[in-house]
Amino acid sequence: MTLPRYGPMFGPDVTFLGVERCALGEPATYADADVVIVGAPFDGGTSHRPGTRFGPSAIRQACYLPHDGSRPSLALRVDALQDLTVYDAGDVEMFAGDIEGSLTALEEAVHAVTAAGAIPIVLGGDHTIALPDATGAARHLGFGRVSLVHFDAHADTGDVEFGSLYGHGQPMRRLIESGAVRGDRFLQIGLRGYWPGPETLSWMAGQRMRSYEMTEIVARGLDACLTEAFDIATDECDGVFLSVDVDVVDPGMAPGTGTPEPGGLTARQLLDAVRRCCYELPVVGVDVVEVSPPYDHAEITAYLGNRVVLEALSGIARRRRDAAEGTRWDPAQPLLDGR
Amino acid sequence: MTLPRYGPMFGPDVTFLGVERCALGEPATYADADVVIVGAPFDGGTSHRPGTRFGPSAIRQACYLPHDGSRPSLALRVDALQDLTVYDAGDVEMFAGDIEGSLTALEEAVHAVTAAGAIPIVLGGDHTIALPDATGAARHLGFGRVSLVHFDAHADTGDVEFGSLYGHGQPMRRLIESGAVRGDRFLQIGLRGYWPGPETLSWMAGQRMRSYEMTEIVARGLDACLTEAFDIATDECDGVFLSVDVDVVDPGMAPGTGTPEPGGLTARQLLDAVRRCCYELPVVGVDVVEVSPPYDHAEITAYLGNRVVLEALSGIARRRRDAAEGTRWDPAQPLLDGR
Amino acid sequence: MTLPRYGPMFGPDVTFLGVERCALGEPATYADADVVIVGAPFDGGTSHRPGTRFGPSAIRQACYLPHDGSRPSLALRVDALQDLTVYDAGDVEMFAGDIEGSLTALEEAVHAVTAAGAIPIVLGGDHTIALPDATGAARHLGFGRVSLVHFDAHADTGDVEFGSLYGHGQPMRRLIESGAVRGDRFLQIGLRGYWPGPETLSWMAGQRMRSYEMTEIVARGLDACLTEAFDIATDECDGVFLSVDVDVVDPGMAPGTGTPEPGGLTARQLLDAVRRCCYELPVVGVDVVEVSPPYDHAEITAYLGNRVVLEALSGIARRRRDAAEGTRWDPAQPLLDGR
Amino acid sequence: MTLPRYGPMFGPDVTFLGVERCALGEPATYADADVVIVGAPFDGGTSHRPGTRFGPSAIRQACYLPHDGSRPSLALRVDALQDLTVYDAGDVEMFAGDIEGSLTALEEAVHAVTAAGAIPIVLGGDHTIALPDATGAARHLGFGRVSLVHFDAHADTGDVEFGSLYGHGQPMRRLIESGAVRGDRFLQIGLRGYWPGPETLSWMAGQRMRSYEMTEIVARGLDACLTEAFDIATDECDGVFLSVDVDVVDPGMAPGTGTPEPGGLTARQLLDAVRRCCYELPVVGVDVVEVSPPYDHAEITAYLGNRVVLEALSGIARRRRDAAEGTRWDPAQPLLDGR
Amino acid sequence: MTLPRYGPMFGPDVTFLGVERCALGEPATYADADVVIVGAPFDGGTSHRPGTRFGPSAIRQACYLPHDGSRPSLALRVDALQDLTVYDAGDVEMFAGDIEGSLTALEEAVHAVTAAGAIPIVLGGDHTIALPDATGAARHLGFGRVSLVHFDAHADTGDVEFGSLYGHGQPMRRLIESGAVRGDRFLQIGLRGYWPGPETLSWMAGQRMRSYEMTEIVARGLDACLTEAFDIATDECDGVFLSVDVDVVDPGMAPGTGTPEPGGLTARQLLDAVRRCCYELPVVGVDVVEVSPPYDHAEITAYLGNRVVLEALSGIARRRRDAAEGTRWDPAQPLLDGR
Amino acid sequence: MTLPRYGPMFGPDVTFLGVERCALGEPATYADADVVIVGAPFDGGTSHRPGTRFGPSAIRQACYLPHDGSRPSLALRVDALQDLTVYDAGDVEMFAGDIEGSLTALEEAVHAVTAAGAIPIVLGGDHTIALPDATGAARHLGFGRVSLVHFDAHADTGDVEFGSLYGHGQPMRRLIESGAVRGDRFLQIGLRGYWPGPETLSWMAGQRMRSYEMTEIVARGLDACLTEAFDIATDECDGVFLSVDVDVVDPGMAPGTGTPEPGGLTARQLLDAVRRCCYELPVVGVDVVEVSPPYDHAEITAYLGNRVVLEALSGIARRRRDAAEGTRWDPAQPLLDGR
Repeated sequence: MTLPRYGPMFGPDVTFLGVERCALGEPATYADADVVIVGAPFDGGTSHRPGTRFGPSAIRQACYLPHDGSRPSLALRVDALQDLTVYDAGDVEMFAGDIEGSLTALEEAVHAVTAAGAIPIVLGGDHTIALPDATGAARHLGFGRVSLVHFDAHADTGDVEFGSLYGHGQPMRRLIESGAVRGDRFLQIGLRGYWPGPETLSWMAGQRMRSYEMTEIVARGLDACLTEAFDIATDECDGVFLSVDVDVVDPGMAPGTGTPEPGGLTARQLLDAVRRCCYELPVVGVDVVEVSPPYDHAEITAYLGNRVVLEALSGIARRRRDAAEGTRWDPAQPLLDGR
Repeated sequence: MTLPRYGPMFGPDVTFLGVERCALGEPATYADADVVIVGAPFDGGTSHRPGTRFGPSAIRQACYLPHDGSRPSLALRVDALQDLTVYDAGDVEMFAGDIEGSLTALEEAVHAVTAAGAIPIVLGGDHTIALPDATGAARHLGFGRVSLVHFDAHADTGDVEFGSLYGHGQPMRRLIESGAVRGDRFLQIGLRGYWPGPETLSWMAGQRMRSYEMTEIVARGLDACLTEAFDIATDECDGVFLSVDVDVVDPGMAPGTGTPEPGGLTARQLLDAVRRCCYELPVVGVDVVEVSPPYDHAEITAYLGNRVVLEALSGIARRRRDAAEGTRWDPAQPLLDGR
Repeated sequence: MTLPRYGPMFGPDVTFLGVERCALGEPATYADADVVIVGAPFDGGTSHRPGTRFGPSAIRQACYLPHDGSRPSLALRVDALQDLTVYDAGDVEMFAGDIEGSLTALEEAVHAVTAAGAIPIVLGGDHTIALPDATGAARHLGFGRVSLVHFDAHADTGDVEFGSLYGHGQPMRRLIESGAVRGDRFLQIGLRGYWPGPETLSWMAGQRMRSYEMTEIVARGLDACLTEAFDIATDECDGVFLSVDVDVVDPGMAPGTGTPEPGGLTARQLLDAVRRCCYELPVVGVDVVEVSPPYDHAEITAYLGNRVVLEALSGIARRRRDAAEGTRWDPAQPLLDGR
Repeated sequence: MTLPRYGPMFGPDVTFLGVERCALGEPATYADADVVIVGAPFDGGTSHRPGTRFGPSAIRQACYLPHDGSRPSLALRVDALQDLTVYDAGDVEMFAGDIEGSLTALEEAVHAVTAAGAIPIVLGGDHTIALPDATGAARHLGFGRVSLVHFDAHADTGDVEFGSLYGHGQPMRRLIESGAVRGDRFLQIGLRGYWPGPETLSWMAGQRMRSYEMTEIVARGLDACLTEAFDIATDECDGVFLSVDVDVVDPGMAPGTGTPEPGGLTARQLLDAVRRCCYELPVVGVDVVEVSPPYDHAEITAYLGNRVVLEALSGIARRRRDAAEGTRWDPAQPLLDGR
Repeated sequence: MTLPRYGPMFGPDVTFLGVERCALGEPATYADADVVIVGAPFDGGTSHRPGTRFGPSAIRQACYLPHDGSRPSLALRVDALQDLTVYDAGDVEMFAGDIEGSLTALEEAVHAVTAAGAIPIVLGGDHTIALPDATGAARHLGFGRVSLVHFDAHADTGDVEFGSLYGHGQPMRRLIESGAVRGDRFLQIGLRGYWPGPETLSWMAGQRMRSYEMTEIVARGLDACLTEAFDIATDECDGVFLSVDVDVVDPGMAPGTGTPEPGGLTARQLLDAVRRCCYELPVVGVDVVEVSPPYDHAEITAYLGNRVVLEALSGIARRRRDAAEGTRWDPAQPLLDGR
Repeated sequence: MTLPRYGPMFGPDVTFLGVERCALGEPATYADADVVIVGAPFDGGTSHRPGTRFGPSAIRQACYLPHDGSRPSLALRVDALQDLTVYDAGDVEMFAGDIEGSLTALEEAVHAVTAAGAIPIVLGGDHTIALPDATGAARHLGFGRVSLVHFDAHADTGDVEFGSLYGHGQPMRRLIESGAVRGDRFLQIGLRGYWPGPETLSWMAGQRMRSYEMTEIVARGLDACLTEAFDIATDECDGVFLSVDVDVVDPGMAPGTGTPEPGGLTARQLLDAVRRCCYELPVVGVDVVEVSPPYDHAEITAYLGNRVVLEALSGIARRRRDAAEGTRWDPAQPLLDGR
């Protein structure tokens, strides 16, 4: 039976690599879910190049393998789409011209998933959606009880832009102001470039955020920075929300995005870092944002977004399996040496 | 002196082919204007592919000639940028996520230009802006006193979409409902495809709109249709607002747009039709909409948008000259046979 | 219930603009069909640029309107997807490396649809598929009882190429040799360029084919040529198979194709011609071929393919309605003057 | 034997569709030529978008058929590459930074071909090359004895630009000033847009040039204009040089060019017009210019350039055959009705 | 003298950077060869995006330097195209629709080259061709006597796909099954992603293949993995076949390929690794596959393919020189410090 | 007041991210400058793909932030556009067809800036311009008193090419020959590939240049090489000219360039290296060359060029601040830990 559901805002009604559908308005359809994928096709908060409204559709489809609801990870030796119960709820209706209505609708969707005991994985959309994403999770888990690990070229801590409190340059500020996320449990990785200015940086410092600019990452090594950040993230928090802005990767490897900032991570680094997050941390929600298909070439950025989702799912699945079996994953193990 | 003014929403502050600047908030800066160009970088009302926010910047720049504020028309033998007093007011600030605030701001801008006695030429942006464009003009000239000549593949007479009364599929309905434009003075040229459905068509017929679908245009000839439409447009109306959606042209010749519908006019036909409108009708305002640079190739759609503006300006200039001199333009005159 | 069926060869399982699914292996699922859409994602017969394997998926999806199984035609005032019973059978599995096996599978599929009393509309794929398409229809309707109206830049009457009897340059020859289609009931429209050579042209003349090269079309007018061709097509034949190679359109308006030949029809001309075919002729099958997404820009060729299918469907629907009601469609009727 | 010759400036040494090579420095290698193809890979005279240096290579290769030195024309029923003796001399070395040296080298090449009794077909390159092309021919045939038929969006009659007498906006002025071509035997077809200004137009009128702007062409019909122009071209001149700037075609159909001007001819119109020129006029030289591959998409402009060359060759071949046999080509003749 | 030979399947007949031609059917033409380049323009085995049929032509041409048969390596200080005797045999005719016939033809070609004592460098084409490539070499050198070093994102060890034993996901399985290559002499480098599944991995483990997934490579370092792999490759084998699938590189740096898998090597890493292979191992054959020009941008993937070939050639040349002279190459030596 | 000045050669008159204008011909307008930006829109010296004439315009505009003359660096905690006095002088008129005139004009411009005590940052343009750039600086600072740090894939030390002493493959040789820069104070970083050949390398060695090929850089580490190079650069020289050819970065990350050579630095490495140069060395001039927009995708190479300029400016600003305050920048310092 095809569930009644909102489906896609744009194009045909497809699910992430063919997983089963659920309907957000019918909690019974995802009562047993481990993960629920939610599309947030919203680019009304974008300050420059739009197009992320097509991100959910592109991320769902970017794969050369059959869309059959199975993806065995070579690296982690789990098949997250099979080992976990994963549904795709389609898109939340988010009209670009109505930012407040759109964010409210998404927050409800994320809260509903979290309340059902599942992990929401939200496919953006521009980064504005991190506000409803993390708020929706925090409403269930407790304001201040969820830390935020945030991969991005930009701090996204602006105040008012274009006369609006909401937009893709401001979600992190709103989250801290509301108390949904504690400033000192905000971990930002990959910042670089020429924004924001001193005033905003002072505000951030005042909130005791921890932001790893690329210079520090190059000087100390990404793994050392992550290990340090993970310690902070799990201190006095029950869960971690992972927000991945694809522009943390160098524009040369991820051109399909709106605010490209040269000098980023490699795709390999991002995938490894996402894997570590989901394997080592108690992740309670994920969003993958700022994939903008009109600026992509040969779908390479959409593929990267798809693989970030799979890497997160696989990390979660392997974490659960190792927890159940008391085992531990070894990255240096040869592929064909058993599991 | 650089005028204080809002300037561009995106990118550098350039004017249409180098004409002088004015500032909307300072009427003295355009008191002597014949035409004021206004950018409306808004794509928050777009139902599908966004990107028209970059339309104003692209249309202003798409020219291989020096940006020197001079463009002598070979066809009409006027230099509209010199013969008319043309200013560029920069962009109206229009945040995609706030459709109502954006439309209000644009309506004020258009009204201010019209009230100053000048013709506004608005560079879109998506077609949502036709609502504030024509309303702004009608507020000055009188509700019901301005007819609307509308080149488009789509009727844009939808009611509510994505829960909103405003969007690029609905401006024409809102204009008729408010009384700004009489339904029986609405002339639509170039419609085709599979939208809207019977209910909306009935509403349109009830309003006594006159819509020329491509089949009729092919059967009767575009010039015959235009002549008929011009007669209606000037009956009991004091002025004509010309709204040009670049998607009236076949997507093969104008790919940089959001809702491409195959089977349209050629670029040549559109340019000739715009010229006739501005030469034969008392045009009081113009908008050129739906140029979406992210989907363009080699700037060809931006060039087309630029040339539509120049054709309109040149038609206006030649109309004024012929009115002053009692002459008449002859399209069959050889280029080098004097003026 | 999701039917068991082969589904798509590539990407997610979507249907043409959201029509219902059927399964070729279960005739009951399309027993009441007027039309069955069949994907033929095959480019193994392509002599130059490949990519038409993604044609079916692209043609199915290329629309900015909701994929809701409804498309009311402004021109013909029917909603073919509603007025007719249309199913989408998904793709036939066609491995590029096995041309003979692929063609056999497709011929079976087309035959099954025809035998069920429905009209197959096959989405290619390269033009090799015209052989199984028309053969499949002729097996049910009688060899020599189906004429073929063929829009194309190329005659596709080659003999052996790359050592193979099968390929996208040869299907028309194979059809005549087998007797499936009579040579003197082969109507080719839009040929041009530098292929084939004299020997093949002699063979074609010997078969009494009627091929309208662009020079003749320009000299006499497309409508006059079509009227003449329609007379031939309906003489001593019970049905007409319509084969539309998108390269009949000028490459400037349809760049997404493999063997572009400058100087073709406009998109408007093709749409009008397809409409006439399906409204005036007893069409028993249709294929739309040579849409190659890797070479497309902004999906404009995919949109054209989609609209060719809709135009064909709408023509069929209007033909049936007029036949039932004793009415006749008038192309010059204004859009809003009732039906 | 591979001839010693300069070969290509860029990329591999290929000939136009596989015709035989000759070496400009060895007249014996083309003593029996009817036509010699010469590459002029020069974009140093371009005022805006460069890239035409790759025009010769792109035009030579843009074909999906085997590069076998044979191209039977469906329209004209000749195989120009076989019926005529056609060689390809490779490229003239033309360093972009040295415009005067480059033009001198090309003029020598064209003169050498003409002096050998052959028709040069020069593949540009930007339109600067029309100066050495027509001069080289006139040096052999007599200054003032060659008229020039010039398809272009632009008059190319500028005086000094960027401080230089030479450039792609000025060749026609230089040709008239030197006396190589009489001003009153200059036929320009397809002009449009906003250049040049009144001063230059006055100079042109003073030279008694005949320039057909698109408005006149639309009003009177292209064929009528051509017929009129042909009468002028053959009055008191012994030969005609045909210069085809691909930007005469609408940018939608020929995007790969440097100075796109919307509102041009269709590709079909250009091909038919070139055919008429070469069939009806005593053509002594041809150039095809302004194909700029970096701005092209899916090679469609390169294909158009290739087909312009083939159409010219085929027209020449058919003209010679009909002259020899006392026959006349009929455009309305069906393709398969004999020759 | 131009040799009679098959030449190219597509486009003009060019050789790899201008090296001399040979003809496969005439062994005398390559009797003295060190290396023979063979084009395998086949994409009939591709499971997703096609286009590799244009790989040979693109790889041959992708260079901004003169195509003069000389390429002095800065890194290795040899000019492989001069120091070695290198011919280009053109393409093997490989019709996409006939996979078995195509593979047979290629196997014969490779065997002929190997039998002549030369190293074949095969330009793909999709990875299906590794089967005939390595088999052709093994037929001469002995089944089981050639190890295979395989750079790829994918294991290519599938069994039956789309009903076929042959395709670009299966060549490695077929090679092991036939005994041409021992499973325990198969070295795979760069695997990642979500294919194949456990069953195939079990089969691979059962064959004692050694596959380095990216996780292991990151954890241990690429150089350490290569050193280990080289030891295996030279144990009980007489030669090494090197198969380079360009998709081993991250799609951001090599977008022009059919099955992009994010998270790969950098181009720099691949070039260094290929150099090590050819300098340190007794390479008896090479293929470079999966370059798909339709998906490329600005030829960057074609350039990478070209440089992989040059790096292999240069490594071979330096290996021979050092063997002859008893010297050894030092990567840390400054460029200008002598040879 | 808008200064009278040459302005841009192409497109609208914009300045680098909105900094103030100055006019080269009026030294008073930049008498207080720390830095003057100069556009050199010249691609007449390009040996292969042109397009760098649009580099200055693209580099000036490639930013998603407001063009407001402020760019606070997260890494260096300076706002170079505010902390330094930076003007943009527009473009030098450089006609592609006149290489000698163009170079003379640019040399005068650079000399004028240097003579005014400011640092010129020249936006190319092809690398030919390094000759007038460094010469202009050396004329003021003394021939032989300025060392040159040169990031590039190519040595650019060719002698005569295409019959010209000038071109983008030769500037470094001309600089050494004239004595403007000492050969043994020439530091080249990032060379690779297959050019130049032994003869030129011998000449380079004879000049005692120090060229770091990528193999050495990989073997020793980029930072070690830079440190060594910096020691040489500051020995017996008073200043350093920094010349950055964007093709030093891998084409995968910087596709918009003319002579792409796979295997380069990452964008991150280049930015860090430029920062070190400008922070650690007494830089007296900079050029950023070979950004070719026609070959770019989604502006990523233009963004990289823009960021190279900002990184240079920020390094200069921080160097001055630390010199004034006796402080030192620590790359490992966390972003929010004070300044």
